[in-house]
Amino acid sequence: MRPPHTAKRGVNFLRLASRVAACGPFVTTFTSTTTVGEIGEQAIIERITRRLEMPGWVDVGPGDDAAVVKPARGLREVLTTDALVDGVHFDQAFVPADAIGHRALAVNLSDLAAMGAEPRAVLLSLALPGTLRVAALDGLIEGFLKHAAAHGAALVGGNITQTPGPLVINVTAIGTVRPRRALERSGARPGDEIYVTGTVGDAATGLAMLRAPAAPPTAESACALRYLRPEPRVRAGLQLAHHGAASSCVDLSDGLADGLRQLARASGVGMEIDAGALPGSDEARAWHTAAGTDWLAAALSGGDDYELLFTVRPRHRGRLRGARRRIGDLPITRIGVVARGTDLIVRDAAGCRALPHGFQHFR
Amino acid sequence: MRPPHTAKRGVNFLRLASRVAACGPFVTTFTSTTTVGEIGEQAIIERITRRLEMPGWVDVGPGDDAAVVKPARGLREVLTTDALVDGVHFDQAFVPADAIGHRALAVNLSDLAAMGAEPRAVLLSLALPGTLRVAALDGLIEGFLKHAAAHGAALVGGNITQTPGPLVINVTAIGTVRPRRALERSGARPGDEIYVTGTVGDAATGLAMLRAPAAPPTAESACALRYLRPEPRVRAGLQLAHHGAASSCVDLSDGLADGLRQLARASGVGMEIDAGALPGSDEARAWHTAAGTDWLAAALSGGDDYELLFTVRPRHRGRLRGARRRIGDLPITRIGVVARGTDLIVRDAAGCRALPHGFQHFR
Repeated sequence: MRPPHTAKRGVNFLRLASRVAACGPFVTTFTSTTTVGEIGEQAIIERITRRLEMPGWVDVGPGDDAAVVKPARGLREVLTTDALVDGVHFDQAFVPADAIGHRALAVNLSDLAAMGAEPRAVLLSLALPGTLRVAALDGLIEGFLKHAAAHGAALVGGNITQTPGPLVINVTAIGTVRPRRALERSGARPGDEIYVTGTVGDAATGLAMLRAPAAPPTAESACALRYLRPEPRVRAGLQLAHHGAASSCVDLSDGLADGLRQLARASGVGMEIDAGALPGSDEARAWHTAAGTDWLAAALSGGDDYELLFTVRPRHRGRLRGARRRIGDLPITRIGVVARGTDLIVRDAAGCRALPHGFQHFR
Repeated sequence: MRPPHTAKRGVNFLRLASRVAACGPFVTTFTSTTTVGEIGEQAIIERITRRLEMPGWVDVGPGDDAAVVKPARGLREVLTTDALVDGVHFDQAFVPADAIGHRALAVNLSDLAAMGAEPRAVLLSLALPGTLRVAALDGLIEGFLKHAAAHGAALVGGNITQTPGPLVINVTAIGTVRPRRALERSGARPGDEIYVTGTVGDAATGLAMLRAPAAPPTAESACALRYLRPEPRVRAGLQLAHHGAASSCVDLSDGLADGLRQLARASGVGMEIDAGALPGSDEARAWHTAAGTDWLAAALSGGDDYELLFTVRPRHRGRLRGARRRIGDLPITRIGVVARGTDLIVRDAAGCRALPHGFQHFR
């Protein structure tokens, strides 16, 4: 372990792979309690780089100061970065290591999906506490790379540094989209119909289940899986963009109410939602009934669903049908309509009420 | 402040800028002790986005799920990511906020410089403790953006999240380089001459000065400035690449000995360094003489110089002269020669000895 306040930088793992390669395969014996602080930088880097394969468009991969890649011809590039912090965005007490790696990538791929972009390259920057177990690091990397492979994204670079604080996983994702096809937030107009993919409120319900130590969810709980291993709607975003079907789009990271507010503000419109139309799973509804809590509140305000919320011009319903044929089994539900003005309204059997407020980070 | 272990993501500040814009300029009164936890997310975001200007190649900037940019035509893209952690890579006790922002960007631009790449776009991801003062955040952003502007790099996206731990600043930098012009580490051959830009050991000496509470350095100390506000050698890297002058190149983040070891390993060669040729500042030499410490040790092992270390084929000296004419006043010093085998040797008046070992992160 190095003393605090020293000048040195973290270890760029592109930078280090050459060292590792020069040393040959790194072999170390360790137990389930061995920490990253005990095995040293070369072993940490090697545990990541040995699993990497570079696609043909990577000119310079691991082993140098930075990656050199050939941009995709004729396409725009879509760039996003997002971080997960232990104790804020997940809790190692109930989130397995591979799910942490999966989620750290998923939240970024969800941003690409919301733009209609296809994932291409990712960069992974880890701030690791010295006490983190090697087994946990391996699990995190495993979950991250498996998810990246499933979406055809190549890990082309990264960085590892030590931290006296909690584990921080920062991911930068780069995708591609055809010129003028990116799904922006600002295109909704009064009269457009509002749609959402999949179900809402499941991830928040799954988190509530995972936090209840008395009755943890089963391994098959779809709600718990939705929280632990969210599936970014990359294919849906791609097809919506390809067919020019959506007039605006956002991903649901901080809840449906927040997503509606984002689209409304960016587009300068109001929104009217039909509470009865909101898609939720039977498991989530049953859990809230049993717990005596309000499913609708979870559906409107619960975060981490990573569904896409988008609007469609009525005359573009045919385009939406075209996109749906290519999206597969993922449900797409009409939940309301874009209105004039700026009011955000939820209609249910009892009448109309204002949309609940979104979450304020840092308050 | 939000409770720990909640599901919500950090705030993508691309994502939030639209909210802020819709609200009009955010006005808040605060004192020198106001913290980021007190002013709320919109004010934090607005303090960053109000300073941004987007270049013409940015199709979609702040205000959406991700940035959409047009790649530079006919060029390769160079990608790197690096993080600074409070208490590991800097200490708020003696590093001013604007220097923290400057350094966080500089370490990334230095990676681009080492590849011969021109900076283009950057992404900034901040994990902020709620207790961080708004004045410190402002200073950090100021230092970051000023340095970005000096190098023509546009901040096109980012993320802000809260952390219960130390401040973490993660930067992703994207640059461009002509095909087959990137400066890799693996091209050094026996007989090539070894060069370094600027001076070595100054930043480590500056850090030692800053850490000495009894005799802090003056505001004019070049060594202290080298530590606080390192100047990545972007222009030198560009010219070396443009003239095809360097057979290998690396930036000095973890010291000259480490850099030599990196080039040697990547290229499969040995290195012989002439200790008497190493360029150091008079200030650093005088400080070590007065302190009774060894300047040569700082020059070989001290980190954070962010100079470029590179090799040149003897028959390409003319190319190096061409590059030097365009680099300006920055000294470039020949310090040794690439050798057969794998030995790393330092020659001085007393004879030959082995190069000291580089720093092992995580040990």
